[in-house]
Amino acid sequence: MGIIVQKFGGTSVANPQCIENVAEKVINTKQQGHGLVLVVSAMSGETDRLINLAKQVQLQPNPREYSAIVATGEQVTMALLAMALLQRNCQAKSFAGYQVKIRTEGAPDHARIKHIDTDRILTEIKKGNVVVIAGFQGVDENNDITTLGRGGSDTTAVALAAALNAIECQIFTDVDGVYTADPRIVPDARRVDKVTFAEMIELASLGAKVLQHRAVEFAGKYNVPLRVLSTFEEGPGTLVTLNENSMEQAIISGITCSRNEVKITLKGLPTTSDVSYRILKPIGAADISVDMIMHNGYQDETRDFSFTVSKEQLPKLQDILPNIKEELRISEVQVNDNIGKLSIVGIGLKSHSGVASKVFEILVEKGITIYNIVTSEIKISVLIDEKYLELAVRLLHEGFNLGKAIEPGLIE
Amino acid sequence: MGIIVQKFGGTSVANPQCIENVAEKVINTKQQGHGLVLVVSAMSGETDRLINLAKQVQLQPNPREYSAIVATGEQVTMALLAMALLQRNCQAKSFAGYQVKIRTEGAPDHARIKHIDTDRILTEIKKGNVVVIAGFQGVDENNDITTLGRGGSDTTAVALAAALNAIECQIFTDVDGVYTADPRIVPDARRVDKVTFAEMIELASLGAKVLQHRAVEFAGKYNVPLRVLSTFEEGPGTLVTLNENSMEQAIISGITCSRNEVKITLKGLPTTSDVSYRILKPIGAADISVDMIMHNGYQDETRDFSFTVSKEQLPKLQDILPNIKEELRISEVQVNDNIGKLSIVGIGLKSHSGVASKVFEILVEKGITIYNIVTSEIKISVLIDEKYLELAVRLLHEGFNLGKAIEPGLIE
Repeated sequence: MGIIVQKFGGTSVANPQCIENVAEKVINTKQQGHGLVLVVSAMSGETDRLINLAKQVQLQPNPREYSAIVATGEQVTMALLAMALLQRNCQAKSFAGYQVKIRTEGAPDHARIKHIDTDRILTEIKKGNVVVIAGFQGVDENNDITTLGRGGSDTTAVALAAALNAIECQIFTDVDGVYTADPRIVPDARRVDKVTFAEMIELASLGAKVLQHRAVEFAGKYNVPLRVLSTFEEGPGTLVTLNENSMEQAIISGITCSRNEVKITLKGLPTTSDVSYRILKPIGAADISVDMIMHNGYQDETRDFSFTVSKEQLPKLQDILPNIKEELRISEVQVNDNIGKLSIVGIGLKSHSGVASKVFEILVEKGITIYNIVTSEIKISVLIDEKYLELAVRLLHEGFNLGKAIEPGLIE
Repeated sequence: MGIIVQKFGGTSVANPQCIENVAEKVINTKQQGHGLVLVVSAMSGETDRLINLAKQVQLQPNPREYSAIVATGEQVTMALLAMALLQRNCQAKSFAGYQVKIRTEGAPDHARIKHIDTDRILTEIKKGNVVVIAGFQGVDENNDITTLGRGGSDTTAVALAAALNAIECQIFTDVDGVYTADPRIVPDARRVDKVTFAEMIELASLGAKVLQHRAVEFAGKYNVPLRVLSTFEEGPGTLVTLNENSMEQAIISGITCSRNEVKITLKGLPTTSDVSYRILKPIGAADISVDMIMHNGYQDETRDFSFTVSKEQLPKLQDILPNIKEELRISEVQVNDNIGKLSIVGIGLKSHSGVASKVFEILVEKGITIYNIVTSEIKISVLIDEKYLELAVRLLHEGFNLGKAIEPGLIE
């Protein structure tokens, strides 16, 4: 008998009715003879409610106490789901993170899973119980409650699947899989049957919010077969695996876009060779991640230097920009938040040249300016005006034949 | 340095503003140099919200899962109070029941405290922390979350005070102490400075809902000085102690009344000697507690038999009454829920005769029928029509001089 780990996110357990639907779904799987471990998030809205309470009494909530309070969200859901199963004569028992000894290390509110003691879980499965576990939480060496950071329930599920050597870790969500593009932008976007961990990490970190980044990394590291599927519809979903050489593997798995970028342009810099270093060193020291870097345009004895950061990091950046400006005698600083980043992701890019030039061709033909292009083994990202972002996704989706009607991802 | 345990109930921590008020109060006590352990209930309304969620998914919630869900209420409050203290630069740490190893036995949802490991608490106090503990909960030998039954936070506080050998256990509530009568009924009711545990148990079990019955028993058993006082007003409250011989000890501590009684009268019974037994045996077997018993009135060859039960137990009783009626050939069963019970409680009753006859005199003079009177060492209870209940409390309060203006409780 193999063990399957199933994770249900906040919208899947939003209220008692949803929890009862999940219970019905779980019972169907149980009848197929698998050992079942369920991981649940807090009911949607509950974590925000708890954080709001915390912030009312402490401006910057203490991480230890913060974790104790927000961990209750998942504890409520786990017990409700166990009760919904019991009501349907399906044996079940719920456990909080500390009860199954999900040991963590690091900051109490951004903890990392170090070890899971599977004894209790395996004992309960052998007794015929469906084991329901509160996601997103653990316990540290002081027996203090810890949380994994937002979205951490995915990581809990993957870590449990790895520890239990599960045959599959199924992430149930409100979409039925990974798509070639956001269906709200591209109506004929196609569900992908299979992607690799590497592709999934790029898709997740680029704004395709199906799975938490760390969860996919974890699954890749421990080779846990991961499946993304819908709580609300039947279907096979998308399987995320190590396997790169499948016959059906397309060149391009998906196109994602992000509006979360700000482009900073420093104008009139000296052309000395250490300029980049003198700009980027204090930014790095302030713990700000720079994404794309552009040296765009030389004029006389000066040049411009541009880079992008995420919108959340802009305030931190603006604290240190005046110093940089003064030290390098920069004539002008421009902040542009009307830009967007579009990325094409695919394991097949490794072995296919010419994709980047085709991206240029498709966009430039329609008059879309590309401010920057960055290519890696499995990803090509371009920076363009935000107003063209959705148009560009549709153009590339069509240009690379990623739609439903035709054979996907083949270029001449 | 002595340790003081302070317990704050649901209305004292009803919202973030209330929790901040509690934090201010606690800091004042801390500045007096005591080690402080705080026990908190769930924010008022929260336990009901959680129970309601549970009942939506399981008609009769599983006791183990029920405890896991309702225990989150106190866990939220403990972390909020710790954060409110930290925000005010007062070192504090919160702990759930399992974290300080409040070991329990018995049913998961009506557990009894067996042992508390004080190591962690004492260590944190020595570090200068105010220790905040979630009330109402513990952990059993399987590491499962348990709850003590409603109102159990009082018991948690008393048990902690006993285990820590605290100098006092202070129960903060929305009233400022124990009164000679309900001030809503008797405007000049007086706060009592001191009562004994025995009196407090009678007052608590007779409808004066200041302290949970089990908590007082526990405090008496371990001789924990208990003080009832108000979260919202300054004042010394009422001290509950073992000491019976204080000079200031009045004969009567208080008068309470209860509307929670139903009087059952079985008419036309045979006069054989085993009649009482044949009635009470099946009632006891059905786990129904009979309070007062009256054999009132003989007529010819038959007699009547009356007794009282609590209103909650009436449905259970009505299930078995038809059998009793048939077996004993009872001609008629009357159910009267328009009755009330009034009780005078005082340790001084032990050594003063004549109180019962004075109760009769005061009530009968005003035309109030007494259906039954029961006396014990420290309590005299009478059963009267409910409509006269408040009048009778006022008459007796005045008759025994329990009011504010005059020396309390002296009779000639």
